[in-house]
Amino acid sequence: MYRTHTCGELRIENVGKTVTLSGWVQKNRDLGGMTFIDIRDRYGITQLAFNMETNSKLTEDARKLGREYVIQVTGLVTERYSKNKRIPTGEIEINVEELKVLNKSDVPPFTIEDKTDGGEEILMKYRYLDLRRNPNQQALMLRYKMSIEVRNYLDKQGFIDVETPVLIKSTPEGARDFVVPSRLHHGSFYALPQSPQTMKQLLMVAGYDRYYQIVKCFRDEDLRADRQPEFTQIDCEMSFVEQEDILNTFEGLAKHMFKVFKNVEFNEPFIRMPYAEAMEKYGSDKPDLRFGMEINNITNLGKGKDFKIFDDAEFIGGICAKNISDKFTRKQIDKLTDYVKRPQIGAQGLIWLRFNEDGTLKSSVDKFFNEEDLKKWADSFNAQPNDILFVVSGSKEKSLKILGELRLELARQLELFDNSKFAPLWVVDFPLLEWDEETKRFYAMHHPFTSPKPDDIELLDSDPGKVRANAYDFVVNGVELGGGSIRIHDSELQSKMFKTLGFSDEEAQEQFGFLMNAFKYGAPPHGGIAYGFDRWTAMFNDSDSIKDVIAFPKNNSGKDVMLESPGTISNTQLDELGLKLK
Amino acid sequence: MYRTHTCGELRIENVGKTVTLSGWVQKNRDLGGMTFIDIRDRYGITQLAFNMETNSKLTEDARKLGREYVIQVTGLVTERYSKNKRIPTGEIEINVEELKVLNKSDVPPFTIEDKTDGGEEILMKYRYLDLRRNPNQQALMLRYKMSIEVRNYLDKQGFIDVETPVLIKSTPEGARDFVVPSRLHHGSFYALPQSPQTMKQLLMVAGYDRYYQIVKCFRDEDLRADRQPEFTQIDCEMSFVEQEDILNTFEGLAKHMFKVFKNVEFNEPFIRMPYAEAMEKYGSDKPDLRFGMEINNITNLGKGKDFKIFDDAEFIGGICAKNISDKFTRKQIDKLTDYVKRPQIGAQGLIWLRFNEDGTLKSSVDKFFNEEDLKKWADSFNAQPNDILFVVSGSKEKSLKILGELRLELARQLELFDNSKFAPLWVVDFPLLEWDEETKRFYAMHHPFTSPKPDDIELLDSDPGKVRANAYDFVVNGVELGGGSIRIHDSELQSKMFKTLGFSDEEAQEQFGFLMNAFKYGAPPHGGIAYGFDRWTAMFNDSDSIKDVIAFPKNNSGKDVMLESPGTISNTQLDELGLKLK
Repeated sequence: MYRTHTCGELRIENVGKTVTLSGWVQKNRDLGGMTFIDIRDRYGITQLAFNMETNSKLTEDARKLGREYVIQVTGLVTERYSKNKRIPTGEIEINVEELKVLNKSDVPPFTIEDKTDGGEEILMKYRYLDLRRNPNQQALMLRYKMSIEVRNYLDKQGFIDVETPVLIKSTPEGARDFVVPSRLHHGSFYALPQSPQTMKQLLMVAGYDRYYQIVKCFRDEDLRADRQPEFTQIDCEMSFVEQEDILNTFEGLAKHMFKVFKNVEFNEPFIRMPYAEAMEKYGSDKPDLRFGMEINNITNLGKGKDFKIFDDAEFIGGICAKNISDKFTRKQIDKLTDYVKRPQIGAQGLIWLRFNEDGTLKSSVDKFFNEEDLKKWADSFNAQPNDILFVVSGSKEKSLKILGELRLELARQLELFDNSKFAPLWVVDFPLLEWDEETKRFYAMHHPFTSPKPDDIELLDSDPGKVRANAYDFVVNGVELGGGSIRIHDSELQSKMFKTLGFSDEEAQEQFGFLMNAFKYGAPPHGGIAYGFDRWTAMFNDSDSIKDVIAFPKNNSGKDVMLESPGTISNTQLDELGLKLK
Repeated sequence: MYRTHTCGELRIENVGKTVTLSGWVQKNRDLGGMTFIDIRDRYGITQLAFNMETNSKLTEDARKLGREYVIQVTGLVTERYSKNKRIPTGEIEINVEELKVLNKSDVPPFTIEDKTDGGEEILMKYRYLDLRRNPNQQALMLRYKMSIEVRNYLDKQGFIDVETPVLIKSTPEGARDFVVPSRLHHGSFYALPQSPQTMKQLLMVAGYDRYYQIVKCFRDEDLRADRQPEFTQIDCEMSFVEQEDILNTFEGLAKHMFKVFKNVEFNEPFIRMPYAEAMEKYGSDKPDLRFGMEINNITNLGKGKDFKIFDDAEFIGGICAKNISDKFTRKQIDKLTDYVKRPQIGAQGLIWLRFNEDGTLKSSVDKFFNEEDLKKWADSFNAQPNDILFVVSGSKEKSLKILGELRLELARQLELFDNSKFAPLWVVDFPLLEWDEETKRFYAMHHPFTSPKPDDIELLDSDPGKVRANAYDFVVNGVELGGGSIRIHDSELQSKMFKTLGFSDEEAQEQFGFLMNAFKYGAPPHGGIAYGFDRWTAMFNDSDSIKDVIAFPKNNSGKDVMLESPGTISNTQLDELGLKLK
């Protein structure tokens, strides 16, 4: 037996007991007469005491123990002289009588402390050591507890976890599928699911009514910040539901999670904001509602003053930054201008209007707009002295997006993000389709199984871009934590949808025939949602990156630097798969 | 709102209430004046009543509803005249006032009944319809409940679920790895894990102490009966444990599961049977202990009677089939002989000895053995009148295996398998290594991380084949439900093990360097187990095949005939992956 107790278990009540502990050497302090060692495991830290006077041989052995040695000790639980109130075992220590080194350790490449001295590269290479650090253990523990809480909540709601296959069908549409060559059937490939979307729909057709799964999904895309090639979803689907049924059910789950893990209670329903409104007010389909600074449309006020840029613009609008004019320098404004002119954002320029504390107005377009004109702007924004307005113009769609980015950048600079605050909402009524200029065709904004709003179905032929979907995203603090839709359950409507998306009948049949066939045999009305489990955990863990809440994440180029994966395979293996490298 | 209640919910107390139900048409019976429809969902079946006299239009509509139509009805809950005691809703019916067809259904290719008329091929192709059948819904529900029970049990024992990656490193040893070509790094491949073995060991190095995961694993092997390319394990690992700690912990889980799901209580510890004993007594490392018929060694009795086959044999042994001689014909014995002579089993022949009811003995080797000799045989088997002995000879290893197969075949024929009985045991002390004649080298019997028994380590150099491992299997009714081992946690011993297995230092470093490196930084003693979740569920579901308890299984050639997977991918996709078909 390696231990009678864990390193986090002993208390003052245990004094006088002989115990055995096993764990890692966290600290080794030689104070001359006494040597103290902190022994650590997942459950905590216990102080070990070695006395040079009473047992010099053992104490000398103890002094030799390096950091991260794995040891086993037996000794008497004793009350400490100087107690440590910061740890639960801080009132006791172990007077060690026996010491055994279970395993040695080389000096770790970085310190196993809350704040380590290791850089990201080295931490990832030695992830098994990085994972020993407290913040990481807490993150994975939080993740685990969240998963349990989700499961118990959904279980009580009658959902059942059904495992869907990982080796599924590759489709030509699935340009971002990871594929798996078949050894038994040369030239054929499985694909890893980007989500169990079609499988869970089949489960609804099969009558399972309420399904969930905490499931790995895979996407082989160029990795942007904070994406992983494999990620985890809380994937759910329900039958005989309308959009509100799903929102209510999963709002319940979200509220429960906020209560349990953040002690935040939401007594009102979450806001349901139409996509169009989110775009108009926040220039984003995932607005951060922790602060205001809404977009204001001043197209009418900006026109007709011979300012050609405005006169030519479809849209003129801006945001109002409150009470900063005295502190926000011209240089800062210039930097902000540079920020929005970066190609990723693409503004042509940024017009500003200072509402001075003395009530006067000063703008970058004084040449075209007199004080009275500008006053009208300020009024339309409800601006107060010491505010600054920032205004852009151009196409409406682009201007809103620029203002959305500007709003977030200003919030960063003005420190308006409060991580202790949570502002959840549902963004609803997404457009069903997105037009792609390059390929001159419509794409499904969510996926091709999303149902149009019944009122908009007739627009599918006449004006597809106007059709709104029964689709919704769950957004918290500007982060999309989940999304879903009511699905099409009618095989004719599904065919029509594929046609609108430019699929020939043959293509649709080849790729999704199994689903369209299934719909012929009594598919129930159904819909669902998937929460991004990594992102949600990262938010609750107050982490900037989902890597913090994944045991063995890959780096930004999709590599596991610890495993050195992906790696080469042998020619024999390639032969067996019927493949050649190009 | 599609429903106020499910189809399994209404009782006599609800009489007088107006309710709305949604579900599938299970049955449609036109009795002239009345039409009765059974409406079905996951929760049950409710009878709908339509009265021609009071509402002829609605009743006519109802008569047109085909099997598997999806309908929504509103009506009054009414007490039935003739009650159906076999279903929970059998005391009531719904007097339908409104009927809406939510979706039509083509006539299903087979009946959605407990006993269907569909063959396996068609059931798999239309798996979403097959899954509507009761036995399948019950199987998946059982699977789900088992998963919840496992999670709750392990949670209480301090285990935490940590997700390990699915895209890991491919190793040349992993001939049965599924590989995933990387689009970002041409010529490089990820592999899908055959088990999270090394990852969970790293979690132990990282100090996670008690890990579990219900996790998909992948093996690209020629599919034998009842194997799937993807399968699910209850995967566990513990630190600071010896073999007995693991056996006790997971025996606890097994007993709990037997109690909850089969109402079988085991009050004694499970038998721990050394591998050598299992082979000697049952000719199998997964003995079925529901019945006796143990192997008896009569090598001494068989020699020296000029029967050359016996005189040349290393081993002579047999089994005794009790009380069948009067019923078991010569023809049956001949068939049994043919059975063991099949190439898969490989016996040269089968010798029999009848212990007649009158006390006389008759054997197929009367030429060489007189009545007195044969009496000795019978005594050594404790045979009684009316028993038959079956005897084989040859090399010991092969003879034991033949007798093991013979024992099972006899049990099948004599109907000794009782599926209501459970005979669990631990098979322990497996050999560490297996010699392969073909490649003239040792292979790890479990995997190369299994630790040898400390007492046997010195044999690693002198007689590797004799080394026993700290490895164990959990066996129930002749099925291996799980297995595991205490792992090596010492990097030197691990290197030595790789050397014994014929790895060069470079090969070992290239393939398992990450693990050997990890072991340098204070790896704790650790070990674990993996239960085969599919098999366990199949056993509790009284299913012969794990396919019965998998939502979307693949067929015996690894194909998903519903999805038509694996399938081809486009040349563009191949190009992007830097691959060519051979």
